[in-house]
Parts: sequence; C-alpha cells; structure tokens
Amino acid sequence: MDYADYVPFACELADLARPIARSHFRTSGSHELKGDGSPVTLADREIELCLRAAIRAAHPEHGILGEEEGPERIDARFVWVLDPIDGTRGFLAGKPLFGTLIALFENGYPVVGIIDQPILDERWVGCTGRATTFNGEPIHVRAAPDLAASVVYLGWPACFDIEDRPGLDAIEAIAPVTLFDCDCYAYGLLAMGQADLVLEADLEPYDYGALVPIIRGAGGFAATWGGDDPGFETDGTFVAAGDESLARAALRHLGR
Amino acid sequence: MDYADYVPFACELADLARPIARSHFRTSGSHELKGDGSPVTLADREIELCLRAAIRAAHPEHGILGEEEGPERIDARFVWVLDPIDGTRGFLAGKPLFGTLIALFENGYPVVGIIDQPILDERWVGCTGRATTFNGEPIHVRAAPDLAASVVYLGWPACFDIEDRPGLDAIEAIAPVTLFDCDCYAYGLLAMGQADLVLEADLEPYDYGALVPIIRGAGGFAATWGGDDPGFETDGTFVAAGDESLARAALRHLGR
Repeated sequence: MDYADYVPFACELADLARPIARSHFRTSGSHELKGDGSPVTLADREIELCLRAAIRAAHPEHGILGEEEGPERIDARFVWVLDPIDGTRGFLAGKPLFGTLIALFENGYPVVGIIDQPILDERWVGCTGRATTFNGEPIHVRAAPDLAASVVYLGWPACFDIEDRPGLDAIEAIAPVTLFDCDCYAYGLLAMGQADLVLEADLEPYDYGALVPIIRGAGGFAATWGGDDPGFETDGTFVAAGDESLARAALRHLGR
Repeated sequence: MDYADYVPFACELADLARPIARSHFRTSGSHELKGDGSPVTLADREIELCLRAAIRAAHPEHGILGEEEGPERIDARFVWVLDPIDGTRGFLAGKPLFGTLIALFENGYPVVGIIDQPILDERWVGCTGRATTFNGEPIHVRAAPDLAASVVYLGWPACFDIEDRPGLDAIEAIAPVTLFDCDCYAYGLLAMGQADLVLEADLEPYDYGALVPIIRGAGGFAATWGGDDPGFETDGTFVAAGDESLARAALRHLGR
C-alpha cells in the first residue's frame, strides 16, 4: 500500500477549504460557544460540510471523523479525520496562524496528514514512508539541542492539568525560549527546524492526527506523553520533538 | 505642530528595517541571552544600528532610545523610541507575528507610532490627531462588548506579577475567547476591530510607545493599569481596549 496515492486527494480537500477560511477571516462573522465552552465559527461548519461531501463522493467506503459533526463509518479501514479550523480562538481574533487539519487514518492510526494555513499560503504535507514537504519542498527537523538550548512551545495554558504545572514551570525555567498558544502551527515550525519541542494535553484525534505523519516524515518524534503511538485511542497528551531524547528529557519533569 | 510631518520619515525607517528582518527570519541565525534572560538576535542589533544611523543623519537634534543600545539625547524635545524586533521569542521560533516598533515621543509622550510586520507586509501607522491606518487604509476599533462577550489577549504569562494571577484567571473565566503570547500584533488586531482588550505588564517605553497613537487614532483606549498616560515614566503596566469602560471593567478584577 502506498499511502502517497491518497496525498493528491488530501491536497484537493485542503484546496477546497482555503477559500472558505479566507472568506470568513477578519470579518465580523458570528461564532457561538459549544458545550465545552470552546468557540465554533461559521467557517468551521462550512469547511467540514464541504470536505465531508467531497470525501463521500470520492471515497464512499471511507469513514469520516470531524470536530464539528458526528462520526461516519469510523470502523472502516480508512477514516478521514478533520479539524476545519484548528486554533479557532486565534482565527476569531484575526491571527493568521490557525490551520485546516486533514488526516487519513488506517486501522486507527494516521498515515497521511496536512496542515494548511490559508492566509499565509503555507502547507505542510506528511505521508508515512515519504519525506514531509512545506509548500512542496522537503523539510527536516533540526538536530535537537539540550532542553537548556531549546525553543519550546507549551500550548494553550488551560489545556494542562493542575498537577502538571510544576513540571511545566520547570521546563519553562530551563528552556531559554518558551512560547504559548500556537496550536497546529507550532508543529509545522518544529517540522521545519524552527522549534525543538511542543507539549500539549487534552487533544482529540482531529487535533493530532495530521501532525504525526508530518513530524515523523521530517525526522522528528511524536507520541503520547506515555510513549504510545497516537491513534484513535489515547489519553489526549501529545509531545513532538526533534528527537526522542529531548522529548524524554522534558517528560521526566512531568513524571513520565 | 503637525506630527504627520514626521510620518513619512517613520515609514522610511520601517522600510529600512524590513529587508533586515526578512533576511534573518527562519534562518539558523545565532541569538544570545541578555542579562534578564530575554533573547536578542542579530536582526535586533542590525536593525537598531541601521535605524539609529538614519535618524542621526536626518534629525541630528532628535534623541534615540532603543531596546538594544544605550540612550542618546533623550532630554531632547523629540525622541525616537525603537524596538527592532518586538516578539523576539516568536521571531526566533519562526512565527511571523513579531513586529518592528517605531515611535516618536514629544516631551516624554508618544505622538507617532508604527507597527510593521515584515513577513506579512502589514503596517499600522498611528499619529496624534490623525486616523490610524493599516496598509494605508483607515481602521477603527469595534464597539466594545461586555467582558463576557470579548476577545481578550493576556500577553506572555511570565510578564505578570503573581498577585495579579487571581484577577487574570477571573478575566479568563469571564471572557469567551482568551489568547496569550501575541506581543505587538495583538494591539494591531485590536486597532482593526478584531480583538477587544489587551492586558500586559512589565513593559518598557519601546514596547508600548508605538502602540499608543495607533490605538487612540483608531478610536480605542490606551493607558497604564492605573489610568495614567503612558510616557517615558510608567510602572510598565499597559491596557488597551475598544473603549475605556471595557478596560475599567477588566481592571476592577485586578484591584485597579
């Protein structure tokens, strides 16, 4: 099976999403709050409906799992996993670092992933067995330095449990450059060698599915904090790093 | 005195900075840590040296205050206040939301300000007595909703004192959309009606000087947390909002 056969269709999906995201960016478009208090925009809904229709038409035997609508045939061998606007808070505030995330899972694990940034015209494409590309050019993580020389992203502060706070504070005290609140874009920067470590928690498969093939295809390490392969079933923790030893050094501060 | 006479020169300075910032963005350029632990890049130093030379040549009687080099003639009536790369941590991590900040102070208070984002080709220009522009077009803050309907930026978590944490947590709990770690770009978004409130602390005149004319010229409110006009002498706190009542509602949570 060459998963690369699915890459052109995944890119078509990203192409469909781009004009919808652009048309709603920096408008006064309405948004509402979901049951968990997180915001959802018209762009989220329109993109997901459009991508679902395209998938049903091209691959009626495939399943679909999206952030906004219910699961369809997710016991199928191949399931498309969609986050129409990852970084909805940033999108709502006019910050052009949100992303459309498109992943293809096979038997519960991601094999193809796209991060698409429609405003900056930036696209990361990952595929198991292939080199990850950024706007068509191969990219690679950089040699991971010690934590004491690393650029670290720590996600949205509210995503972490309170018991992880001392460990996160320790990581922040050691790393010379720590950033927050960058959503999928942080992983794109890691895959292209601009950041060394990203830690997040409370994620869903549509948040991390696309990231796994992108990070691994760029030579990086991606896993749950416990070291498991992130598939449909995980505890929602996620770590990505230039190499496994840097991830393990950080996770020791979190008792993992 | 029409401060607008100085706007073309301020824009020339931003034009000089752009190619230098671009040439260092997403390279493996070296950076070092300053005494306070904050990073400084080659781009910071090169831009500031270049802008200082241009100011000395055009306005030898004016003073200069920059983030990286020492003060020059800051008792002059007019002083240029420069932050070559505001958001150095983001710049180092390849995030295209840093900004070059250029302000002109008269008698200790800012009268002209520029936020320039060299990667996205975005420029905000503010001038006392004139409408703020974004890439040449006039912009305006939006009608500020209640805090319970606001998009709020809370700056870099480490900029706040520990005693402000409960108040900040209360604001985060009330506002439906809270973001972190956006540096000057958050104020640009506020001036164009994409965000409602920004709170930061531990700022220097080169961090907030350019922001004041931009926010006020877009119809917004900018002050210290205590309500003072931010000039050379402040306590480093800074609040910007679509209108003063929203700022005051937020500051009440911080005991101000």
